[in-house]
Amino acid sequence: MSFFRPEILAMDGYTPGEQPQAGKFIKLNTNENPYPPPPGIRRAIEEVLDKGLQRYPDPMANAFRTRAAELYKLPSKDWVLCGNGSDDILTICTRAFVGQGELLRLPYPSYILYKSLAQIQGAQSQEVKFNADWSLPASFGDPAAALKLVFLPNPNSPTGTMISREAILELAERLPCPLIVDEAYADFAEFNCIDLVQQNEKIMVSRTLSKAYGLAGLRFGFLLAQPQMVEQLIKVKDSYNCDAFAIGAATAAIHDEAWQADNRRKIIATRAKLVAGLEQLGFTVIPSQANFVWCNHQKHEARPLYEQLKAQKVLIRYMNYAGWRDGLRISVGTDEQTDVLLALIGSLL
Amino acid sequence: MSFFRPEILAMDGYTPGEQPQAGKFIKLNTNENPYPPPPGIRRAIEEVLDKGLQRYPDPMANAFRTRAAELYKLPSKDWVLCGNGSDDILTICTRAFVGQGELLRLPYPSYILYKSLAQIQGAQSQEVKFNADWSLPASFGDPAAALKLVFLPNPNSPTGTMISREAILELAERLPCPLIVDEAYADFAEFNCIDLVQQNEKIMVSRTLSKAYGLAGLRFGFLLAQPQMVEQLIKVKDSYNCDAFAIGAATAAIHDEAWQADNRRKIIATRAKLVAGLEQLGFTVIPSQANFVWCNHQKHEARPLYEQLKAQKVLIRYMNYAGWRDGLRISVGTDEQTDVLLALIGSLL
Repeated sequence: MSFFRPEILAMDGYTPGEQPQAGKFIKLNTNENPYPPPPGIRRAIEEVLDKGLQRYPDPMANAFRTRAAELYKLPSKDWVLCGNGSDDILTICTRAFVGQGELLRLPYPSYILYKSLAQIQGAQSQEVKFNADWSLPASFGDPAAALKLVFLPNPNSPTGTMISREAILELAERLPCPLIVDEAYADFAEFNCIDLVQQNEKIMVSRTLSKAYGLAGLRFGFLLAQPQMVEQLIKVKDSYNCDAFAIGAATAAIHDEAWQADNRRKIIATRAKLVAGLEQLGFTVIPSQANFVWCNHQKHEARPLYEQLKAQKVLIRYMNYAGWRDGLRISVGTDEQTDVLLALIGSLL
Repeated sequence: MSFFRPEILAMDGYTPGEQPQAGKFIKLNTNENPYPPPPGIRRAIEEVLDKGLQRYPDPMANAFRTRAAELYKLPSKDWVLCGNGSDDILTICTRAFVGQGELLRLPYPSYILYKSLAQIQGAQSQEVKFNADWSLPASFGDPAAALKLVFLPNPNSPTGTMISREAILELAERLPCPLIVDEAYADFAEFNCIDLVQQNEKIMVSRTLSKAYGLAGLRFGFLLAQPQMVEQLIKVKDSYNCDAFAIGAATAAIHDEAWQADNRRKIIATRAKLVAGLEQLGFTVIPSQANFVWCNHQKHEARPLYEQLKAQKVLIRYMNYAGWRDGLRISVGTDEQTDVLLALIGSLL
């Protein structure tokens, strides 16, 4: 006999990418930024230490909200909700919108966590396959009685492809429920959907500092949404979901626009180099707007390649999507890491 | 029309205690520790900064788990689950055990958050009133078909009173579901229930570093439970629920047993002084084993006293429990803060 809800017992649980805590790896498996975060972080952390940790942090992280509203040209901080990583934001939204037996929709293949979140709620999830050109079929926007939430990663993972702003506006108009545009990787892309939040309350944009700001270790994400949406979501979040270090460092990070522009430029340049190198080695690579690429070799199986690289202390992500295919997702590292990776793959083929 | 689950729209949301972000307050309203945390924290934080924040933290916070198992004499780290504050632990447990329409039991008056957690799940909550001597009626351990989880804060808030270890063992034997002993304040008490976790898998102990380690700003809590329970709970937590700073600082903190013993001694001594002072001023004070006391003045209303103190920049907590009573919950501060508080109350009466 078990005390757990049957939904919990039945599920496998989301397995995050490997995070080796020891050993020197070239780590290109979880889309971390290879560069150190904005230099202002250290001073922000020291300020928190000097102020002391005895007191609870600001439950709403208003310093960050105020700056984010300014940076993203939203009317006020009431359009921003902060979370302990964007996973916290996705969790809060799922709990707020999707009840037991209801329906959550997501594209396939995409971020596996969305399905786990539905499972924890005892909800159903509906995976809609991308078209061959990585657009979405019209059915992705079809209303359904039980449909309460739709997730759309943009750029998508593992493919790095994007759905256009026009298509997203149209989806939101057709859907009977909120559409969370998960922009974890949008800082590496050619466009984003932040301003669409003001056009339709169903469009909510989720963001993270883990990828584009080199702060995966910090756990800080946020949602941009209309104030009447944020107001209800606050009821679902833990009271003090962001700690004093995360609030201080995240606020400092998004003040540094020059760092962000420079980092973006470097990642995009290395991405081009990575794609060219992979293609030269005989890989088919999907054109990506994120800080990773999805690829398959024309002759060699993906899994042994992943394993051989791991044995050589280079970690990339092997993923196998039932009904679609398996393949390799490779994060964009530094130029040096990319050179090592490409040389190593060349020697293995 | 709203997109939110009806349970979310219907609830008020948990209101945390006031956390003024500006102005010099003597803050005795949210049971924070008045002393700085163990000095090793600063080095631990600097080590995290030096190592860099680009990478994700250890999803399981194993460094902390290993040390906690050692400190609390549990067989292995598999008996420990880490959370983003103990609120995260309470949230994870509620989501794992209590489905829509099911029942969660809590004593009354106690921590108001438990009820909010049930509401978010669309579950019912059943409040069982303490007896006049702050023991619990036998009905608190009665089985019920829909009963899936029981919360028992020990020491309780707002009273600081405790249920004996024998009573807790007996409760766990009678209950059909897990019993979470919320030991947020147990480091200030005469006993705790950690070893009982090994006697009955239904007993799970939740802890926080916010109170006894002066780390409210850090957000770190943990659960001690049998490994087969922890294993399922992992499925419900966010993958990277604790950040690199929190893991590093929390691990350093629980290594410093001397600091903890000294801090405990100081808080208990000041608590005695606070109680004596309040009684001298005509308050009735419930004997407390926590770092706060619950009191009422024999002649003066609680709310105006709270308001007058706030106007003088001394924050205590006014609470009003329907069907029981209102009163004042005062955190144990430093000796100096306690002197200021008592003198101020004396001048107001």
